[in-house]
Amino acid sequence: MIYLDNAATTKPDEESFLKAREFLTEKFYNPSAVYREGHALQSELKKARSALLSGVASEADFELVFTSCGTESDNQAVFGFARRGNAVTTAGEHSAVATAFLELKNRGICEPRFAPLKKDGSVDEQALLSLVDEKTSFVSVIHVNNETGSVNDINALAKAVKKKNPRAIFHSDGVQAYGKIPFRLVKEVDLYSVSAHKIGGLKGVGALIKRKTLVLPAYIIGGGQENGRRSGTENTFGIKQFEYAAIKKFASMKADYERVLSYRETFFKSLDRGIYTRLSPENGSPYILSVAAKGLRGEVLLHMANDKGLIVGTGSACSSNSKNRYSRVILACGHDEQTADGVLRISFSPETTEEEIEKGAEILNEVGRDLARRMK
Amino acid sequence: MIYLDNAATTKPDEESFLKAREFLTEKFYNPSAVYREGHALQSELKKARSALLSGVASEADFELVFTSCGTESDNQAVFGFARRGNAVTTAGEHSAVATAFLELKNRGICEPRFAPLKKDGSVDEQALLSLVDEKTSFVSVIHVNNETGSVNDINALAKAVKKKNPRAIFHSDGVQAYGKIPFRLVKEVDLYSVSAHKIGGLKGVGALIKRKTLVLPAYIIGGGQENGRRSGTENTFGIKQFEYAAIKKFASMKADYERVLSYRETFFKSLDRGIYTRLSPENGSPYILSVAAKGLRGEVLLHMANDKGLIVGTGSACSSNSKNRYSRVILACGHDEQTADGVLRISFSPETTEEEIEKGAEILNEVGRDLARRMK
Repeated sequence: MIYLDNAATTKPDEESFLKAREFLTEKFYNPSAVYREGHALQSELKKARSALLSGVASEADFELVFTSCGTESDNQAVFGFARRGNAVTTAGEHSAVATAFLELKNRGICEPRFAPLKKDGSVDEQALLSLVDEKTSFVSVIHVNNETGSVNDINALAKAVKKKNPRAIFHSDGVQAYGKIPFRLVKEVDLYSVSAHKIGGLKGVGALIKRKTLVLPAYIIGGGQENGRRSGTENTFGIKQFEYAAIKKFASMKADYERVLSYRETFFKSLDRGIYTRLSPENGSPYILSVAAKGLRGEVLLHMANDKGLIVGTGSACSSNSKNRYSRVILACGHDEQTADGVLRISFSPETTEEEIEKGAEILNEVGRDLARRMK
Repeated sequence: MIYLDNAATTKPDEESFLKAREFLTEKFYNPSAVYREGHALQSELKKARSALLSGVASEADFELVFTSCGTESDNQAVFGFARRGNAVTTAGEHSAVATAFLELKNRGICEPRFAPLKKDGSVDEQALLSLVDEKTSFVSVIHVNNETGSVNDINALAKAVKKKNPRAIFHSDGVQAYGKIPFRLVKEVDLYSVSAHKIGGLKGVGALIKRKTLVLPAYIIGGGQENGRRSGTENTFGIKQFEYAAIKKFASMKADYERVLSYRETFFKSLDRGIYTRLSPENGSPYILSVAAKGLRGEVLLHMANDKGLIVGTGSACSSNSKNRYSRVILACGHDEQTADGVLRISFSPETTEEEIEKGAEILNEVGRDLARRMK
């Protein structure tokens, strides 16, 4: 089976897993326990925090809080800071942010504002800034969109937002960027969400990176773990496996980027242009290639490809629980419903082989031609 | 090292872990993905849900939502239902419920009411019921207290609460009871929190059991996983390992109970009564034995025992992050500060050996006598 749905989840890194396994065997203790064996785990968590943070931000200015997933990190950011006036985001957010913004309205907390996207899937920066005013308490802009791979210049946006309203808190969902896109956070970014399972870590582990001087309200409260910012017994094994997987990712990030970029271009070049149109921009994340087979249903193509040994996605796996037939993000890019209906998301890993790229594109061409013939 | 702090966390069950490992290797897919390999994981989650639920409740009347930990389950219950009028709980709750109740007041959501404990650590049932009135929206009573092992008859309490106010939602934190105490939920219990890592599962996995017809508000929102009740990519590996560990626990629950009961009694009989006073009631959970060395500091004894190869706890590991010197639960039982200062929690596992029980009590006697001598 050729796996090209790495934006949905990645195969956990075996080596990191084997290395972290000692935290399930001899070091299984509760990290909040006061005896030596428990307490020693606090320094293991500290090491993990430091390694995971230093990949994207200065340890002098930022710190990291462990959570159970990217979604929890996003929820903690939105509900912790979008508390009055209005909150501004984009039409291209992951559902973890988009749904939370809709809740702000439902619960009468504050007014959510959505900035439109450009055709390439990135946010219309001027439109976003025009929504920010003196009453804006919170701004959230996704770093790399999970359906199109479009990249927002969050550092520049954070600076521009702070210039307009220095008290507005700036958050970014970095789940599809972290460990993939060479990048460092500037101090104007207050909060940044990351997830382990998109870079070879385990499901059930995430983190919220925060500016050190920012007071972060807890979202899950109780025993006071994570300095009172996230209660619940720390998932030491999952956190250490995340650390080890991330260290590997950061070490090979630039080479991986180049490799995956060539995969994306080779893959797209191999696709039959009579069937597939490219939606992902050239300057987007190379890890994600979104295409549309106009007039054909993406979901049907997905299943036909699956039967031939290829796994690709249609938009976001996280939206498959939703009742909406069309991706709101693809429509927000200005594409029509017929295009949205034909979307396939191909997402790469540096572990993908050249043969898989070649064979994968071939399968998509076969099933596309096959379905197009049948539709005539 | 003799490990007698199993109420803080248990050693993950190796066999369950090895069996679940395939969900990190060939079955690592995103369970929300629509292709065959992803979709197949939904039935794996369903099997886990069914196995984990059937151990304590009827599948006709209850269902189970996966969360990231017992604390999250407790938070979801409290913040989901304690929304108006008043909410009633006990002075013997785990901090995940206790802190959430204090937040109800801080946030001006509703009035929290705390029922006192009896000397044996269980709630004063009449006092609890007298706090329930027509304005009570939510009641939460811990099943087995994590510091003393005291058991509350939550089925009887739920029935009595519903008799007084049928609209009040009844929740119980079952983290220290699930898989340990033979027990089945009656329909009057609306919500029940459980955690994996207290019964050989992994940290970072929990569940909230709910009455089927109860509409449970989501606490973490986004992609709509868990039927919209808990968003975030499902931790398939952790969930399956929890399933396998729980199946083993439920199969041996009664035999384990008897074994651990004899451990508790043997351990207590071996303790020097000139030093240690028993706080845990005879009819409490056999998994937890709380004792006090009056006039001595429990934390000092813990470290001395640690040096001699024995691990025990002082009250709850989850409270070690708190600034309070004395356990609020021990004080709520009516013990004085000097007693609270000398508390040690010894918590057993069926995997504990008889030799460890004997040796463990011997070490506690040694360090107790040693410290008492030094204090003279």
